[in-house]
Amino acid sequence: MAEFSPGLEGVVAAETAVSEVDGANGRLIYRGGYLIEDLVPIASYEEVAYLLWHGELPNERQLDALRQQMAAARNLNQSARGTLMAIDPQTDPMDVLRTVVSAQGATRSLTKPTLEEAVALTAVFPTIVGAAYRRRQGKEPVEPRPDLGHAANLLWMMEGQEPQSDKAHWLDAYLVLLADHGLNASTFAARVVASTGSDLTSCVVGAIAALKGPAHGGATFAARSMLDKIGSADNAEKWLSDAHARHERFSGFGHRVYRTYDPRAKILRAMAKTASPDLYKTAARTEEVALKILHEAHPERPNATNVDFWASVVLTATGIPKELFTCVFATSRVVGWTAHVLESLADLRIIRPASRWIGPEPGKKPAQLAER
Amino acid sequence: MAEFSPGLEGVVAAETAVSEVDGANGRLIYRGGYLIEDLVPIASYEEVAYLLWHGELPNERQLDALRQQMAAARNLNQSARGTLMAIDPQTDPMDVLRTVVSAQGATRSLTKPTLEEAVALTAVFPTIVGAAYRRRQGKEPVEPRPDLGHAANLLWMMEGQEPQSDKAHWLDAYLVLLADHGLNASTFAARVVASTGSDLTSCVVGAIAALKGPAHGGATFAARSMLDKIGSADNAEKWLSDAHARHERFSGFGHRVYRTYDPRAKILRAMAKTASPDLYKTAARTEEVALKILHEAHPERPNATNVDFWASVVLTATGIPKELFTCVFATSRVVGWTAHVLESLADLRIIRPASRWIGPEPGKKPAQLAER
Repeated sequence: MAEFSPGLEGVVAAETAVSEVDGANGRLIYRGGYLIEDLVPIASYEEVAYLLWHGELPNERQLDALRQQMAAARNLNQSARGTLMAIDPQTDPMDVLRTVVSAQGATRSLTKPTLEEAVALTAVFPTIVGAAYRRRQGKEPVEPRPDLGHAANLLWMMEGQEPQSDKAHWLDAYLVLLADHGLNASTFAARVVASTGSDLTSCVVGAIAALKGPAHGGATFAARSMLDKIGSADNAEKWLSDAHARHERFSGFGHRVYRTYDPRAKILRAMAKTASPDLYKTAARTEEVALKILHEAHPERPNATNVDFWASVVLTATGIPKELFTCVFATSRVVGWTAHVLESLADLRIIRPASRWIGPEPGKKPAQLAER
Repeated sequence: MAEFSPGLEGVVAAETAVSEVDGANGRLIYRGGYLIEDLVPIASYEEVAYLLWHGELPNERQLDALRQQMAAARNLNQSARGTLMAIDPQTDPMDVLRTVVSAQGATRSLTKPTLEEAVALTAVFPTIVGAAYRRRQGKEPVEPRPDLGHAANLLWMMEGQEPQSDKAHWLDAYLVLLADHGLNASTFAARVVASTGSDLTSCVVGAIAALKGPAHGGATFAARSMLDKIGSADNAEKWLSDAHARHERFSGFGHRVYRTYDPRAKILRAMAKTASPDLYKTAARTEEVALKILHEAHPERPNATNVDFWASVVLTATGIPKELFTCVFATSRVVGWTAHVLESLADLRIIRPASRWIGPEPGKKPAQLAER
């Protein structure tokens, strides 16, 4: 029997052309062979969604068609609307998202995942996130607007007013950067669900469930919370030294795959400088001190800043509170989840690994059973 | 880099003491070293749940305490009740289960999985399944009864009348037999979700999502549907030969791990003989002919009958319609899912496998980008 790889580190669980995390060289490649840094300046989230689903960037007509398809799918259906209104408004927004997506995608009989469903599920995420946010504040949900793009719609449905164009732009860039990332845990969860022949909503709900954890999507919230505690650039050295002495982990540093600076973090860092100059100062000083402490303590590790650290600063600039960060991450990644599921259909085989038994051997009747 | 194992076949993804599928010898071992055939005659589902959670069978006092804890957790909370009533009554019962469990377990902030939550989630499954069944028929849900056990409660909440004791007994035995099964796809999905630090409800919802597929939990429905099409023992030979000629797969045969007769199928087969004598005749003849055809076509394969085939006959004897089979499977397996998640907490490491890139290399700017 094969060796036990905790966390399946280095185990190849799929062949994929959706995205590649080249950890050694710090590159993130999207479908078609696009480097993320080449895409961000020129492509919107909708264009990148099209790319990840179809394998090529859309022309103007194709992009228009996708925008119209998404606009038509942004409203909650009756089951999802009723579910949203039934849930305690103070519920964790990720639990609202998990539940309402499950209701929105519920059907009368099992269906095979389709691209049309992928578009519809992606389109409805901002509606649910916006409504969850407003209900937490005791406000009524705001209807989506067909004339606004995906990123702008999320901000619109949160605030009920048209967002400043730079805020929508920063959010759009974030959505592009987070849309896919190889076999991360939530995408892998989606593929495991798909491997049994289950439907696309089930795949996406399973992925939301996995993204929620603080070791995955929840890390952006943790990075922002750490910056909140540090408070100012002046306090970074003291706070981080104290935290290190208490053996606390620094949020926003380290990654399973990257051995270098995360290419997404690099782009977000540059964006943060203009988007959020005050928080940038605190974050930049925090990064400097944290990397120094980590390199001294663990010179054998790469210890690079990860995407969550700088994403937390850019998302703050868009006006999104940290309680919604994981939901906004999901709003981006749903494109990757669905693209992976659709890709996996070509050669579906149930993902059913082995386990190693560490319990007692049977053989003789256990004492407890003999007594009965 | 490691080799690509499609479906992670033979890859050891966890060490576990919850259960062991000894495929070579056709043994299923539950926690503590109990063979499934030793447990079924003497232990109820509640006792086996206690065993899988705690590592030993309960004494009378412990069993009473568990029964009381479950009885107190059988009712839907307000969010879940509202969600249930909001969903289109004709929805696939597995989608209802996925959504209402998600609502029932929603919380205001992230919590670490606990045994208490595992008990509560397990307790509420029959309530949701019973209500989904009744709403499909335009009937009001029936409240759970604290004086009935787990299996009897499910039948009670479906029919609104106290079940015959033999029906409750057959269902209870089924629930014992299906409660855990190594790293099957839904349990693995639960462990992937848990590995990110997510909450127990998210793990269970992810597992429901995976169980739904016809290559996993949906297979019992498929086996029963095949028996429906065959109709009678006399028709088995003709129907199966024709289906084989059309290259159709026979539902209820073959398994990733067992190289012998599935030990659960063996027990269920014996039970089916008394529980459902008419359907037993059709099923037994179907099994005989199917195995003959499969052995002739694929002499190199084990081609054994699996648990889904005989489970479909026993569940029919309990009066449960096939549309609910996957939900009833989930009602049993939730104990295994939660036991695995709780076990995994001792050494949590994110499950994040590698992938192999089969897309184009970047390097030069893709043509489409240069054009823009």
